Amino acid sequence: MVDGNDPGEIAFQVYPIGAVHKRDGEVRIEIYPEYANALLGLKQFSHIIVLYWFHENDTPDQRRILQVHPCGNEQNPLTGVFATHAPVRPNPIATTLCKILSIDGNQITVDDIDAYDGSPVIDIKSYFPHSIPKEEIRVPDWKKEDH
Amino acid sequence: MVDGNDPGEIAFQVYPIGAVHKRDGEVRIEIYPEYANALLGLKQFSHIIVLYWFHENDTPDQRRILQVHPCGNEQNPLTGVFATHAPVRPNPIATTLCKILSIDGNQITVDDIDAYDGSPVIDIKSYFPHSIPKEEIRVPDWKKEDH
Repeated sequence: MVDGNDPGEIAFQVYPIGAVHKRDGEVRIEIYPEYANALLGLKQFSHIIVLYWFHENDTPDQRRILQVHPCGNEQNPLTGVFATHAPVRPNPIATTLCKILSIDGNQITVDDIDAYDGSPVIDIKSYFPHSIPKEEIRVPDWKKEDH
Repeated sequence: MVDGNDPGEIAFQVYPIGAVHKRDGEVRIEIYPEYANALLGLKQFSHIIVLYWFHENDTPDQRRILQVHPCGNEQNPLTGVFATHAPVRPNPIATTLCKILSIDGNQITVDDIDAYDGSPVIDIKSYFPHSIPKEEIRVPDWKKEDH
């Protein structure tokens, strides 16, 4: 199941619904015209969760990597990819939070995104503050020192 | 591109890495054994982001639905699915935040999850508090009244 090459295994199909464009300091998410109607009402939100595809890491070998030194720093302890946001993972899906600057037709301009120019976008979701945990949030030392 | 039936279009492949189990009030995420090594170090986090597949909504017709009344409430204004977390969307991927209660081998017990028993899990990511926006978060009235 890990290598994704067994034609007998069940896979789900994900289609790009847009793409990231980075140019001259501007970060724009283009939603393909056939999906533009799915943006109705999004202007009333300040933030979005963007799901994009780590397309440069979508190889059978990279999907088999299950442990990494987070942030590519060998000082960080070897860690399972499910405990990180590493781009190498069994399903190379990224989730990231962006602040909306403007929406013009099928173009969403955001403050920044940790994607590449050309990254395929696979979903947009509005961001709700009640998804923030009320209780204490605990992270390991390597993560505390990371920012 | 919307109907996903054109063999010429580019699709990304997503494979289940586990499944949700709900039984007797317990909510457990089973990670398939071949991915268990990807959990190393996850115990040091208190919360995870779980990505799962809305498998009961993965039909060409449901993927074509671009606007809904949020939460199935007709009093809520017609809204683009990218401004909601509706299970009908072009790529039926759910993202949800869970509090870890315990991790035992390849089994993660969480406080709750808005998935069904049997929902396919496609990714787990650790949750970092610095992903919470520092600035004001804005949502429309229909969302404020929802909780």
